[in-house]
Amino acid sequence: MRLIVQKYGGTSVGTPERIRNVARRLLETQQSGCKVVGVISAMAGVTDNLIKLARETSPQPTEREMDALLATGELAAIALIAMAINALGGKAISLTGAEAGILTDRAHTRARIANIAPKQIHQLLADDYIVVVAGFQGQNPDGDTTTLGRGGTDLTAIALAGALNADACQIFTDVDGVFTCDPRVVSEAQKLDEVAYDELLEMAGAGSKVMQSRAVEFAKKFGVEFEVRSSFHQNAGTIAREETANMEDVVIRGISVDRNQAKLTVDDVRDEAGIAGQIFSAIASGNIVVDMIVQSVSKHGTTDISFTIHENDLDAATKLLEPVVKEVQAAGLITKSGVAKLSVVGIGMRSHSGVAARLFDCLGRGGINIHLISTSEIKIAVVIDGQDADRAAQLTHEEFGLAKFIPSQTPQSADE
Amino acid sequence: MRLIVQKYGGTSVGTPERIRNVARRLLETQQSGCKVVGVISAMAGVTDNLIKLARETSPQPTEREMDALLATGELAAIALIAMAINALGGKAISLTGAEAGILTDRAHTRARIANIAPKQIHQLLADDYIVVVAGFQGQNPDGDTTTLGRGGTDLTAIALAGALNADACQIFTDVDGVFTCDPRVVSEAQKLDEVAYDELLEMAGAGSKVMQSRAVEFAKKFGVEFEVRSSFHQNAGTIAREETANMEDVVIRGISVDRNQAKLTVDDVRDEAGIAGQIFSAIASGNIVVDMIVQSVSKHGTTDISFTIHENDLDAATKLLEPVVKEVQAAGLITKSGVAKLSVVGIGMRSHSGVAARLFDCLGRGGINIHLISTSEIKIAVVIDGQDADRAAQLTHEEFGLAKFIPSQTPQSADE
Repeated sequence: MRLIVQKYGGTSVGTPERIRNVARRLLETQQSGCKVVGVISAMAGVTDNLIKLARETSPQPTEREMDALLATGELAAIALIAMAINALGGKAISLTGAEAGILTDRAHTRARIANIAPKQIHQLLADDYIVVVAGFQGQNPDGDTTTLGRGGTDLTAIALAGALNADACQIFTDVDGVFTCDPRVVSEAQKLDEVAYDELLEMAGAGSKVMQSRAVEFAKKFGVEFEVRSSFHQNAGTIAREETANMEDVVIRGISVDRNQAKLTVDDVRDEAGIAGQIFSAIASGNIVVDMIVQSVSKHGTTDISFTIHENDLDAATKLLEPVVKEVQAAGLITKSGVAKLSVVGIGMRSHSGVAARLFDCLGRGGINIHLISTSEIKIAVVIDGQDADRAAQLTHEEFGLAKFIPSQTPQSADE
Repeated sequence: MRLIVQKYGGTSVGTPERIRNVARRLLETQQSGCKVVGVISAMAGVTDNLIKLARETSPQPTEREMDALLATGELAAIALIAMAINALGGKAISLTGAEAGILTDRAHTRARIANIAPKQIHQLLADDYIVVVAGFQGQNPDGDTTTLGRGGTDLTAIALAGALNADACQIFTDVDGVFTCDPRVVSEAQKLDEVAYDELLEMAGAGSKVMQSRAVEFAKKFGVEFEVRSSFHQNAGTIAREETANMEDVVIRGISVDRNQAKLTVDDVRDEAGIAGQIFSAIASGNIVVDMIVQSVSKHGTTDISFTIHENDLDAATKLLEPVVKEVQAAGLITKSGVAKLSVVGIGMRSHSGVAARLFDCLGRGGINIHLISTSEIKIAVVIDGQDADRAAQLTHEEFGLAKFIPSQTPQSADE
């Protein structure tokens, strides 16, 4: 008998009607002849409300208590889902993260899964229960509740699917799957049938909000295939898996746009050990997330260090950097807000030369100026003016043939 | 070092500001040189919202899942209280009912406490923690969360105070203590310094909403003294304890009024075994709560059976009883809605004769007609017209000298 893990996010369980809908889907999956484990997030808005309450109650909430508080959102959701399944004539039981055997380290609010001991789940599945597990949480060696941080419910689902050796892991969400580009930006964007873990990771890091990186990293590490699909209809979604040989036939899998970025350049700084450390320590002290970092070639013993951050952090970063710029005797700090990052991602670029040139040429023909370039093995990211972002995505999407089904470039699984 | 258990209800923790206030009080109690255990309810409104969500999700929620759901309200509240204490510089930790060692039977939604194993609480108190325990919940032998039913947080506090052998158990609430009568009905009503468990039990059964009967019964059974007092100021409240000899000097401790009652009489029914059973089985099948039951003296082999219910249940009760009335060949069913029950309570009436006569005489002088009379050892209850209820309470309050401090009748503790 197939064992399926289905994850439903906060939007999918946001109202009593949607809760009943998820209950129905879990039950139908069981009735189709499967063992079913549901992994559920807190109802939409609940976690944010709890965070707000905590902040209004104490300026810096204790992390143990913050986890105990936040975990209640999922605890309420699983009970509601289980009772809704029972109301439909099914047989369901809710389990906390601890009851599901999810053991974590002691890092409250961002715990890592240390081990999964799903003995109770196996027993309940053998007794024909639909097992409804609280996402986003586990238990540390002291017996305290921990939470896994943002995207934690995806992580719970993928980790459980791995530990249970499930036949399928389905991540239900409010989008239809992973797309070649955001359909609001590029109307011809296509849903992908499959995507490699690495591609999804690069897309996640590049502003595509479908999956958090940690869950994808976990899936890659333990080889857990999963499918991202919509909870609002029955269509197939996108399957994420280890790359296969034929995946390389596709040069570019997708394009992501990250808006509202700011670019900072520490100009003409001595090319010496420790200086980059000083710069990014200052930024880190303000809890500012740095994205691209580019250091240009050293000339006459000096270099430029450029990086991007969210433009909301620009003022704070500037204040933090000014004393450092003086201390390291750099020529100055140049900042530019309102820029965007365009990333093209595909494992095929490893075996197809000239992708970068083709991208730069395409943008150049469109009159789009490039401020920064950064590449990884399967991604090329460029920083451009924010106002050019949509047009750049459309031009690139067309250039790499993502807009339409072209057999030679995007073979469907059935044809492979 | 004194060990104090303090219970705070939903209104007392209903907003972030009130949560900080409760945190401050718990911390001040510790700073005054005590070990402190706080027992906390869900924030006001939270439990009702969860019940509403459950009903919208499934018509008859599974009881296990209902308990798992309802318990989350207290889990959120204890985390918020603990973080608020920590924010004030204190050292607090939150414990679920299970962590606090509260073991119950398997009766979901109305579990009874089977045992308390407060090992973890003792350890944490020894380490100078303020221990914040979730009220209203425990764990059954299967490891599932159970809830204790209405008033369950009072029960948790009293049971914990007993198990910990606490020096004091303080039930903080939104009233100043137990009064001789509802101050909204009798403006001269006085706060009582002390009350016997039995008196409080009779008052609770008679419409006084200060404490649920189950918590008081538990306190009586295990001899746990507790104090009912306000969370909004520092004044002493009312101490509930086993009766003492001098308590009998007070003839009547308090007067309760229960409005919106209906009286039903099954008229001229054969005085035979099994007939009362048939009548009340029919009522019970509609989940209708019956209060007073009075059967008059048998004449010529027939009798009348009268009882009271909430007037909202009158239509349902009438429908359920009509076939029974025919079946047992009673003369008929007489109903009257809009009546009220007036109860006078005091253990002193055991040693003071003529209390009933004095009550009936007082009501008679006021032209108040009595429809039903029922007495227990320490209570006399009468059913009267609802429109007479306030005046009856005022007349009785005056008749028994409850309005003012009269040394011969209500000696204060200090004078004893």
